[in-house]
Amino acid sequence: MRKIALASITALAFISSSAVANDLVKKATDANLKPIPSKIEELNKLIDPKGEITPAKLELGKKLYFDPRLSKSNLISCNTCHNLALGGADTVSAAIGHKWTANPHHLNSPTVYNAVFNKAQFWDGRSPHLADQAQGPIQAGPEMAAPKELVEKRVNSIPAYVEEFQAAYGKDVKVTFEKIADTIALFEHTLVTPSRYDEFLEGKADALTKEEQDGLSLFIDKGCVSCHNDIAVGGSMQPFQVVNKYKFADVGDFKGDANGMVRTPTLRNIAETAPYFHNGQVWTLEEAVKTMGSVQLGIDINDKEAASIATFLKALTGKKPEVVYPVLPASTYDTPKPDAM
Amino acid sequence: MRKIALASITALAFISSSAVANDLVKKATDANLKPIPSKIEELNKLIDPKGEITPAKLELGKKLYFDPRLSKSNLISCNTCHNLALGGADTVSAAIGHKWTANPHHLNSPTVYNAVFNKAQFWDGRSPHLADQAQGPIQAGPEMAAPKELVEKRVNSIPAYVEEFQAAYGKDVKVTFEKIADTIALFEHTLVTPSRYDEFLEGKADALTKEEQDGLSLFIDKGCVSCHNDIAVGGSMQPFQVVNKYKFADVGDFKGDANGMVRTPTLRNIAETAPYFHNGQVWTLEEAVKTMGSVQLGIDINDKEAASIATFLKALTGKKPEVVYPVLPASTYDTPKPDAM
Repeated sequence: MRKIALASITALAFISSSAVANDLVKKATDANLKPIPSKIEELNKLIDPKGEITPAKLELGKKLYFDPRLSKSNLISCNTCHNLALGGADTVSAAIGHKWTANPHHLNSPTVYNAVFNKAQFWDGRSPHLADQAQGPIQAGPEMAAPKELVEKRVNSIPAYVEEFQAAYGKDVKVTFEKIADTIALFEHTLVTPSRYDEFLEGKADALTKEEQDGLSLFIDKGCVSCHNDIAVGGSMQPFQVVNKYKFADVGDFKGDANGMVRTPTLRNIAETAPYFHNGQVWTLEEAVKTMGSVQLGIDINDKEAASIATFLKALTGKKPEVVYPVLPASTYDTPKPDAM
Repeated sequence: MRKIALASITALAFISSSAVANDLVKKATDANLKPIPSKIEELNKLIDPKGEITPAKLELGKKLYFDPRLSKSNLISCNTCHNLALGGADTVSAAIGHKWTANPHHLNSPTVYNAVFNKAQFWDGRSPHLADQAQGPIQAGPEMAAPKELVEKRVNSIPAYVEEFQAAYGKDVKVTFEKIADTIALFEHTLVTPSRYDEFLEGKADALTKEEQDGLSLFIDKGCVSCHNDIAVGGSMQPFQVVNKYKFADVGDFKGDANGMVRTPTLRNIAETAPYFHNGQVWTLEEAVKTMGSVQLGIDINDKEAASIATFLKALTGKKPEVVYPVLPASTYDTPKPDAM
């Protein structure tokens, strides 16, 4: 009798915690939080809506992503600042580029992981998608500093690259700067990192611990979710310094877009991508949470609440796609030489 | 009858070309050229003589090799200058390190591939092996610029790293700078690249084309093999500028070791690792071959001969081991911050 009763209580507790989780999923869904779909067809609709991605394009895009010869110096690749080994970012406050130039606006490198889910690219949202975005840093003087023509000449001087473009796009492909950026972007589209959080949103009640669920609930209740929502848990344009001034607002001259709007960063893998904010001045999740409470929401988030939300944020660290490090086709005698000095 | 006769002639031709190849293998062996052994036991004796390498150490060594947090700035890893995607080197004349400092002696980054077969490390051969070598660039001001203590603090501040060291070396392991360098070196020991040349030396007569065999034969006849021999096709200390002065000798102040000796570079993957020589001033194999003929051997190697030897050298491009790009454990709040500026 006693044993049966205990089992019933345990079962009841399970149902009850499961019911709590179900309520939380509903609350999250109502707050416009969405999972990275586990169903591959659904995911593909999001990351490859035109059905463009093929293994050949993916492999080529990966090579270009890792190829430092896309920079003037031959020393900086996309992966330098958006390092797939380090949460898709670079661990420093402001991006460092060609000739060790810091970003002139003191802007922090955003993660490339899940960037496909952003509604706009760059901190000021000036770019609508990754194929457009990828053209920027390659050319920017303080980043990779390579004029379009140089990039085209470098890639076209390497027959193995041209053959890969032909295999990917057909014999008549013209290997233009835009085509190179497009191909990099297709690779970036696949850099999505599903996490336990996504399993939870899809109904697996025990995918998040009790503490993580509490943190998620608080994240919604406090209003963080008003900017950090949708699949990216961020990624849309939002007003900045709504209530109070950001303590480090004077580090760098970034003031958002023409309307003072800022592209909210994704919170996925946020535990791996310190330092935080557009100018990389905050190094802990708790301080970042409290700062946003004050600056954006005009509320005081206490230490305990910040810790709880941080516990949830850590559950956003996702599984990274396995990437085999490429062996790049060698330069030829015709390849424009690096200008590193 | 006629068919049989033709078949006999073909067979004869085959035997004959095979016999030529056999003679060339003997000639190469007599000249102390040696293959990377295809038998795994033989290879292991060379790259892991103490039987130290385990999957856990290898994975950890790979992570450390790719981790830019071993540099002061968090921006430069071993792989920055010894890029496994680019023949194990960096494509620029002189290595560029911390704060974009060029190597003060204008020295070119040697390839890490097959470095385990070198009899000494660094251009002046001052280091006996890779475990010792790996300590140098991490600390050197113009390279990764990280004091030992900083590297130890960074790695020890990341529990996932400490756990990996414990899994690799046992619970009582002390994660010292030396242990970190040792582990990187073990990974580097596995970066060997067998090629068709090795198959040829092991008796597969058609592994090299007729043209490549002719180039190899000429490589031996001209005397290149007097410095470029053994498994690395180089890798030992040799006198430099034996007969004539190197045209670019004044670029940088490198003059070799105390006795004017220079560590001969491996010629494996040489087609992938331009520019050439200690100060990276020559960009084509043919010019490099002719220069060495004049400077080291006091002979005139004509264009046709240089082209033939270059054809052989291209056959030294080997198969690279597959490397899955690591996902590195994230920094913690205790991890010393990057000093990038």
